[in-house]
Amino acid sequence: MKIPTLLALTLAAALPISPACAEDGYELWLRYRPVSDAALRSTYRSAVTGLLVESSSPNLRAASGELERGLAGLLGAAPPHISAPERDGLILAGTPASSPLVASLDLAAFLARAGEEGFVLRAMPVGGRRAIVIAANRDVGVLYGAFHFLRLLQTRQPIDGLAVVSAPRLRHRLLNHWDNLDRTVERGYAGFSLWDWHKLPDYRDPRYTDYARANASLGINGTVITSVNANATSLTPEWLAKAAALADVFRPWGVRVYLTARFSAPKEIGGLPTADPLDPQVAAWWKRKADEIYALIPDFGGFLVKANSEGQPGPQDYKRTHAEGANVLADAVAPHGGIVMWRAFVYSNEVPDDRHKQAYTEFKPLDGSFRDNVLVQVKNGAIDFQPREPVHPLFGAMPKTPLMMEFQITQEYLGFATHLVYLAPLFEEALGADTRAKGEGSTVAKVIDGSLHGYAHTGMAGVANVGTDRNWCGAVFACANWYAFGRLAWEPGLGSGAIADEWVRQTFANDAALVEPVKQMMLGSRQTAVDYMTPLGLHHLMARGHHYGPGPWVAGGPRADWTSLYYHRADAGGIGFDRTASGSNAVAQYFPPVAERFANLATVGDDYLLWFHRVPWDHHMASGRTLWQELLSRYQSGVDGVRRMQATWRSLAGRVDAERYEEVQAFLKIQEQEARWWRDASVLYFQTFSKRPIPPEYEKPEHDLDYYMKIDKRYVPGI
Amino acid sequence: MKIPTLLALTLAAALPISPACAEDGYELWLRYRPVSDAALRSTYRSAVTGLLVESSSPNLRAASGELERGLAGLLGAAPPHISAPERDGLILAGTPASSPLVASLDLAAFLARAGEEGFVLRAMPVGGRRAIVIAANRDVGVLYGAFHFLRLLQTRQPIDGLAVVSAPRLRHRLLNHWDNLDRTVERGYAGFSLWDWHKLPDYRDPRYTDYARANASLGINGTVITSVNANATSLTPEWLAKAAALADVFRPWGVRVYLTARFSAPKEIGGLPTADPLDPQVAAWWKRKADEIYALIPDFGGFLVKANSEGQPGPQDYKRTHAEGANVLADAVAPHGGIVMWRAFVYSNEVPDDRHKQAYTEFKPLDGSFRDNVLVQVKNGAIDFQPREPVHPLFGAMPKTPLMMEFQITQEYLGFATHLVYLAPLFEEALGADTRAKGEGSTVAKVIDGSLHGYAHTGMAGVANVGTDRNWCGAVFACANWYAFGRLAWEPGLGSGAIADEWVRQTFANDAALVEPVKQMMLGSRQTAVDYMTPLGLHHLMARGHHYGPGPWVAGGPRADWTSLYYHRADAGGIGFDRTASGSNAVAQYFPPVAERFANLATVGDDYLLWFHRVPWDHHMASGRTLWQELLSRYQSGVDGVRRMQATWRSLAGRVDAERYEEVQAFLKIQEQEARWWRDASVLYFQTFSKRPIPPEYEKPEHDLDYYMKIDKRYVPGI
Repeated sequence: MKIPTLLALTLAAALPISPACAEDGYELWLRYRPVSDAALRSTYRSAVTGLLVESSSPNLRAASGELERGLAGLLGAAPPHISAPERDGLILAGTPASSPLVASLDLAAFLARAGEEGFVLRAMPVGGRRAIVIAANRDVGVLYGAFHFLRLLQTRQPIDGLAVVSAPRLRHRLLNHWDNLDRTVERGYAGFSLWDWHKLPDYRDPRYTDYARANASLGINGTVITSVNANATSLTPEWLAKAAALADVFRPWGVRVYLTARFSAPKEIGGLPTADPLDPQVAAWWKRKADEIYALIPDFGGFLVKANSEGQPGPQDYKRTHAEGANVLADAVAPHGGIVMWRAFVYSNEVPDDRHKQAYTEFKPLDGSFRDNVLVQVKNGAIDFQPREPVHPLFGAMPKTPLMMEFQITQEYLGFATHLVYLAPLFEEALGADTRAKGEGSTVAKVIDGSLHGYAHTGMAGVANVGTDRNWCGAVFACANWYAFGRLAWEPGLGSGAIADEWVRQTFANDAALVEPVKQMMLGSRQTAVDYMTPLGLHHLMARGHHYGPGPWVAGGPRADWTSLYYHRADAGGIGFDRTASGSNAVAQYFPPVAERFANLATVGDDYLLWFHRVPWDHHMASGRTLWQELLSRYQSGVDGVRRMQATWRSLAGRVDAERYEEVQAFLKIQEQEARWWRDASVLYFQTFSKRPIPPEYEKPEHDLDYYMKIDKRYVPGI
Repeated sequence: MKIPTLLALTLAAALPISPACAEDGYELWLRYRPVSDAALRSTYRSAVTGLLVESSSPNLRAASGELERGLAGLLGAAPPHISAPERDGLILAGTPASSPLVASLDLAAFLARAGEEGFVLRAMPVGGRRAIVIAANRDVGVLYGAFHFLRLLQTRQPIDGLAVVSAPRLRHRLLNHWDNLDRTVERGYAGFSLWDWHKLPDYRDPRYTDYARANASLGINGTVITSVNANATSLTPEWLAKAAALADVFRPWGVRVYLTARFSAPKEIGGLPTADPLDPQVAAWWKRKADEIYALIPDFGGFLVKANSEGQPGPQDYKRTHAEGANVLADAVAPHGGIVMWRAFVYSNEVPDDRHKQAYTEFKPLDGSFRDNVLVQVKNGAIDFQPREPVHPLFGAMPKTPLMMEFQITQEYLGFATHLVYLAPLFEEALGADTRAKGEGSTVAKVIDGSLHGYAHTGMAGVANVGTDRNWCGAVFACANWYAFGRLAWEPGLGSGAIADEWVRQTFANDAALVEPVKQMMLGSRQTAVDYMTPLGLHHLMARGHHYGPGPWVAGGPRADWTSLYYHRADAGGIGFDRTASGSNAVAQYFPPVAERFANLATVGDDYLLWFHRVPWDHHMASGRTLWQELLSRYQSGVDGVRRMQATWRSLAGRVDAERYEEVQAFLKIQEQEARWWRDASVLYFQTFSKRPIPPEYEKPEHDLDYYMKIDKRYVPGI
């Protein structure tokens, strides 16, 4: 019995040094769990017998470290570093500049397509050996290629005939953190800010590295670490040193740091009597400040500015235009290669006839007056990150000014972290919207990627949903939205389904019996949320301030356009916001074919019906129902959709680890309760105008309207 | 070559399912890493071949689960559950009531000593087999015994002749969380509140369980989950449901939930016109509220109240006494077995001649007028958790009223989480102080454990230092203070050194070359902090509000006793607070032998010199130096102490995992910088009065006084 004894001894010696980690979501989509299929594992192993990186740089070390980590996890051992193509199955990673071997390969045509940040991934012989080449023009491209290769393995793709060339369609792929210096996060539902300012710059939490790794794995190449409601303190020397420490951690991962700039900073921390952008002292102050920042952070990305909106200071305080304001900052960072992102989300202190129109009204006339290094950052819709909005009319309307997209990854208006709402379909809908700016096919994607108007700068920003919660985003499924944003910022043409597929396989498992149902849950979830919250083009009906739960009755207060009544305008005669020529005529801001489609009751479609039209309760819908019945049906459908997700998830018991299974189950229970809350509160409230019954085929509301109106949620996160 | 192939296959199959966890501090002192000494491992293994638990209950399941987890980690495999003493090396765990086998053993004398919550741990035969018995009178005692057994293994103690009987000397061993409902934590330096109120009660973060486990491992049996600056919202039905969910999670671990009660709650959420404790409606409201709470949380512990202090409402608002206020709450919880902890940390709105005296002045006359289920909770010192304070004069002065100790585990006045200050010596100093209330040996420990005055209730509270930071306490070493508090609440006689020894072995390793130096760092660290912050009895010299960094110049503002000048009283003539008969005469509140010692310059000693005396700059110290020279020497000694810790830590490189090594190294760097900041700012400031030079043997301050006075730290955590 020698063998068993030996085996027992060997296994005892192999006692794990530490217990297995919990599946607590921390690893995101970079879990690198072992490939369990023996044949596939063997195939993969034979393709990665050695790692050949001919020089060293921060990006290359990151790439090579990630390959080691990933392959060790997936295949049981990291391939050794080798210095020459001495064996079959090598991975050669590098750029023509850093690697003579890469330079010797016939890759010029591919590398030309890869551009500044893209990569080439090819199975091809190197020095007579079977190899996989990860090549790029710059080291950071090698890093992106390494992540792509690991993604292929994590999703169990064949790698024999690898022939990938991939380049990002957008140049600036950024997260926007709405993180305050006290670590609260505006509209954050994942705990508090990752940035532990008090311990910076001396202590660099290992989590900062994992944050940068996760971004790099998606190609996100910048992060605005401070809130758009900016604080001038973040531009003081003490705080710049902290930002610089973060930049040092992020740099090897290709992630640049950006800051928000408070427009009044020259007064608040500069001691100047004014922040007038045309005052030479002010211009000089910003220039010195930019020089100071670049001395600390040589690859500083630039500034993001929210000006003259929601109480923020801005150039209009001095009767200057947004362009004049943006340009003074742009001139300060231009010598260093920095950019300014100037937000178009503005509304004046006077309540306009229709807030929908204001950004277009203010910004369109400024087209052509911004410096070359200014991008105007435009939210996907003209109101504010609603569950569904028609695309912003500015897209396509500023051919001389780079417009970048601002999506909201954090679910401010979408139930917070506990509602499973996969946002890729929302992003896809916006990117695919045809502005008709230059005829058919003038999609928003083509506007922001510069192909329509030849923009020099292109970009996409996502308002981050990450925080101190162990699972980063407050919920395992919320991380899919970070993932989807990053993947779409690299390639706006990727489909929601393909992205979900990748994410599920990496986050959970390559188990077909799990992948398909989870994908279906995800793909239907956004329509479900629209249905139980704001169906048929209703919008901005959330509770006041925190936006948690229904508040269709919200009225009064400082501004009409901060109330729900302003948006739904329900009365005995009907419901909806007339934005046609008979109303605010916001439709006129769209290019004619789009404007006509929205303006016409016959062509507007159910999704935007009440967004653009005021409709009587008995209006006949395409379904054959009246508007009132259709509303009831949509609200019910939203609740039913959540219940279907619950059933799907229950069917997956045993296929998902206990910790994440229970989290999702608990959150779906919350979502079902809150979907009913939305449905019942909304239906009862609108019934006070429609005066029509709730037919027996619909679930009766659990409480009366008074009950729902009295709900007063306190200490809601995110503000 | 059959064997190697087989081995290779076996090892391949044994590929870890998940990568090893980072040593990120999350596991605290419950790491259960493998016993590497083969002989010891073998001895331990032969002692734990089977686990015999004859019945089931939440506490027993927790005990048995922890034994399985711990033994699996330490020894490679959890022992199987067995149903009879069929083999040598069994662990029998239970109570006489739950286990016929335990009942059959001759343990009565031991169990009598173990009391309600203690345990018996004995190596003895069971059914003719070699066994280790973990017995107790109640299931929770079995849980504590299981943790103690695992602690012995983790610290590599012999277990052959085990014969332990252990019972807690204090009945209420509580953490006090100063956690707000918006998840900020007053004086919290470890992120934000663990309680994710928004997701409660539906989602129960697994972290709540690990929090309860950690407390149970120390014998902490209760937690006040809300801040003493109380919010009546926490007593509304919606929030009680959330507290009940936490109580459900904590219950198996023997941890009861307590809440703070806002004294004005009957008005704020009860709709009553008054909160007068003698108003029958108010009494009825509190009674109904208690009934409501107990219906949700049957083992609810009771209320903690801060009344008429720092702006909090209280009975004095209605011209009632603290006793009248406490009693109305006590009557409400009494039928359910609950207690009220009424804080003695009070000071009136009028600035007194000496805040030091106020608690004694207000509370001593009330001795005997509190209900039986009221404890008065007294901070260790009369001012406020200073680096060093003489013990509070109330201890020993209220023989008819149970006094419980309030320590501060969170380092409000001790540099926050980044300063390595091991607090067990501070706790030990306070517990060992001799009040002389009933002659020599009337230590504070004997006051609070009830042995001096026969209190029916006894307790100790620690203001928690845990938060959302991954390592729980903001720093690995800060967790030693949670540990020490819990161990001392169980047994106030445990020494600082013994506790440090246990903690280091469990937290880092049983490596003598590491244990001894780390213990020495810890044991000296508190004196080091006293020296660089407030040597020789100086106190309350921290920056205004946030207490981060030095502020000896703090003056003005709403209250004289919130300034530094009030406490140090430096001028050309000298420095110090005269609390003898020629001054505020606070010494008179102590029992005569103590009062005499403090009042006499010859006997007061260096530690409390300037606490009780005003002393000229040229006063001759025991060291032979003048007071001014001694001050300089102490400040320098504090800085030197931190540098010694840095040197010690550097010498341990390679003996500690990289993640924790780097954290500690970074924090020691911060501590050294801040120790210099304290020294230089304090010395320069006091020099403006002393007009004496800084001799060349002392390091010159880096900047001038103006520089230090202008430092304005913003967004400091903890408020």
